[in-house]
Amino acid sequence: MAELVGNLLVAQSGGPTAVINASVAGVVQEAGKHEFVEEIYGGLNGILGILNEELIDLNDERAKTIEGLKHTPAAALGTCRYKIDFKKKPEQAAKDMDRLFEVFQAHNIRYFFYIGGNDSQDTAHKINEEAVKRAWDMRIIGVPKTIDNDLPHTDHCPGFGSVIKYNAATVMEVACDVGSMATDDGACCIIEVMGRSAGWIAAGTILARRKPSDAPHIILVPEIALNETAFLAKVKETVEAHKFCVVVVGEGVKNAAGEEIGVDKKNLDAFGHPVLGGAAEHLAELVHGKLNLKTRTVKLGYAQRAAAHFASETDVEEAAACGAAAVKAAMDGKSGFMVKLVRVQNNPYQWTTGLQSLADIANVEHFMPREWISEDGFTPNELFVEYALPLVAGQLKLPTENGLPKFVTLDKNPVEKKLPARS
Amino acid sequence: MAELVGNLLVAQSGGPTAVINASVAGVVQEAGKHEFVEEIYGGLNGILGILNEELIDLNDERAKTIEGLKHTPAAALGTCRYKIDFKKKPEQAAKDMDRLFEVFQAHNIRYFFYIGGNDSQDTAHKINEEAVKRAWDMRIIGVPKTIDNDLPHTDHCPGFGSVIKYNAATVMEVACDVGSMATDDGACCIIEVMGRSAGWIAAGTILARRKPSDAPHIILVPEIALNETAFLAKVKETVEAHKFCVVVVGEGVKNAAGEEIGVDKKNLDAFGHPVLGGAAEHLAELVHGKLNLKTRTVKLGYAQRAAAHFASETDVEEAAACGAAAVKAAMDGKSGFMVKLVRVQNNPYQWTTGLQSLADIANVEHFMPREWISEDGFTPNELFVEYALPLVAGQLKLPTENGLPKFVTLDKNPVEKKLPARS
Repeated sequence: MAELVGNLLVAQSGGPTAVINASVAGVVQEAGKHEFVEEIYGGLNGILGILNEELIDLNDERAKTIEGLKHTPAAALGTCRYKIDFKKKPEQAAKDMDRLFEVFQAHNIRYFFYIGGNDSQDTAHKINEEAVKRAWDMRIIGVPKTIDNDLPHTDHCPGFGSVIKYNAATVMEVACDVGSMATDDGACCIIEVMGRSAGWIAAGTILARRKPSDAPHIILVPEIALNETAFLAKVKETVEAHKFCVVVVGEGVKNAAGEEIGVDKKNLDAFGHPVLGGAAEHLAELVHGKLNLKTRTVKLGYAQRAAAHFASETDVEEAAACGAAAVKAAMDGKSGFMVKLVRVQNNPYQWTTGLQSLADIANVEHFMPREWISEDGFTPNELFVEYALPLVAGQLKLPTENGLPKFVTLDKNPVEKKLPARS
Repeated sequence: MAELVGNLLVAQSGGPTAVINASVAGVVQEAGKHEFVEEIYGGLNGILGILNEELIDLNDERAKTIEGLKHTPAAALGTCRYKIDFKKKPEQAAKDMDRLFEVFQAHNIRYFFYIGGNDSQDTAHKINEEAVKRAWDMRIIGVPKTIDNDLPHTDHCPGFGSVIKYNAATVMEVACDVGSMATDDGACCIIEVMGRSAGWIAAGTILARRKPSDAPHIILVPEIALNETAFLAKVKETVEAHKFCVVVVGEGVKNAAGEEIGVDKKNLDAFGHPVLGGAAEHLAELVHGKLNLKTRTVKLGYAQRAAAHFASETDVEEAAACGAAAVKAAMDGKSGFMVKLVRVQNNPYQWTTGLQSLADIANVEHFMPREWISEDGFTPNELFVEYALPLVAGQLKLPTENGLPKFVTLDKNPVEKKLPARS
């Protein structure tokens, strides 16, 4: 193992989660144990901030702030959706890559950890290839993050356990509510959850069902095209049996023509953007219009991916462990890998971390296996439940002040810039 | 004090809350201490179930189930929106009242507790007047319940503290999320909360703001007509200052013409109902269309009023105490009152219960005082904060199973019917 002495940089990318900061805490706390790591920097707003040389000194933060990141949702370092895109914008991408290595070299960055989803792992992969090409001795490890749970090769993704825990609890509570009103005021409630192309999040709400009659009664995932006739028949049948029906719909559910049901392409605003609609509203209009059932909608939106107040302790531990494992791998001389979660066994659930080449990860989306969904397409089956149940175990201990969450914020002391501004 | 020996009936009415069952627990646990109370019955689905002689034996439930009602959201007995309406349907109302007293007499009901909001207190009031008129010796006490917090004479309503606690936590978490995405992906998130005519619930999210720059940046309440121009200017100013803007909107916000902004009257479905829209979607289209800002919506809907997983312990205690106080008042010979919450002092918060004549309560709506809202109408001020803050203190201890809430359900052993079916 080569001794590589230098500075460490960690950054966050893509949509935030309730536990993405726990991975930062894992990186910082583990890095503090290794003498080869000199400074521990954070890049603000992902790759975008690094291009702008916006680095902060994470060693300057109080230890309790770093620990507090484990209960603070969203990206404490800021995040971005910026992509170094060699395919669509090759000139800009080449320029960005040059600038990135100027920043790395100016600050002697020898360890880089990028916490994110598919796009971010792709970015990490390209940076790793460039480092080799440019002979800049550097170790790059990706840390998985996405509520969407659509990264390949990892058993699941940090962030997923928390989002399905919160969403499943919400389904249980809404079901109590709608069920208790059903006799006089029924009858249908449609809950829209995230997941543009993969149905993992919607599927996760099946955990709310402890007995066959429990909600959710119908779960619609983007992997299966919506058959409106069959859907309406199923709603009708459910209301006849239970007097009410709770439907969960992934925001990206599509019709047979492959069009997202939540997008109204005919209705454009002043800038020519399609007017925001939403899958739940679309289905509510359908149910209300065709079955004349009182129908209400819930759209959890960003609330679900930020819900630290009901996050999974298992998820927090795994997210922190992924950050720590990334540092350990780098110290071990590894580069060009993503940390993955490996399930050792169910019952009792045991897990560990592993490594997978970034080349295997980048831009591959992992969908729900068809055999984990019931034949009629309306519910995930026991194979999925067995998979998902351990991920929601335990509850994050959330400090409060006056009855409300007490989150931490980083001081963000800036690292002195050494380069001219990005052109 | 007259010794009145007989049976007790408790029922729930109107929209459920996270703590309405705690009031049932309070009634049952207190009633158990009094020897004059023979049987303790629950009426299913409010007044509607009582008309149908659908009574259950609450003394037959396990003690731990009754205690578990304190952490179980929504109406465990079922609820209804059915109204005995002497104004609009005098014949039906007279018939209903006759039937009601047939049920009371058949089951020797001498104590009746109705847990609900404005309409329900009106019903309790009418039943009390009828009991006097019919010389049926009976004691009727209303127990307050409504997330809307719009009952008069009570300092606040059980259910309100929990809904604003959950909503404020959600605003804090969504603000972390939107704020961390703002640089690259901003910029505006609009959160729709309940409250058709009063703005208490929307106002309660101000508790999320610990320093002036914190979200929510704008709170729109139904009491103040929306000025779109001023609203858009405020959003623009906020995004310029903080790079993002979190807006909370009460579902019943109206424009200057007094029309709800969330209702699209031009767009009717097959049954002639206006297509469901929503205040948040309307505002998102406005912000997106006029300011070209990326705008996302969250619509908490039923999730907010059922959110036992983040309910206020203070609220639970007060709801249970209101149930117990109702029984104590009835044992004390009182009838025709609603229990109210009385604030003894802030800092430290102390409260007690009192009684108010049902005649003073029925059909009066209590709105936000104008002097509790900032001059520009966009935020509740420190007077409101002082009022609301104690109500969210403490967190309900929620038992879990496999990481998800463990709610109780009543066995609902039916009381044998003694009457012919309702005609």
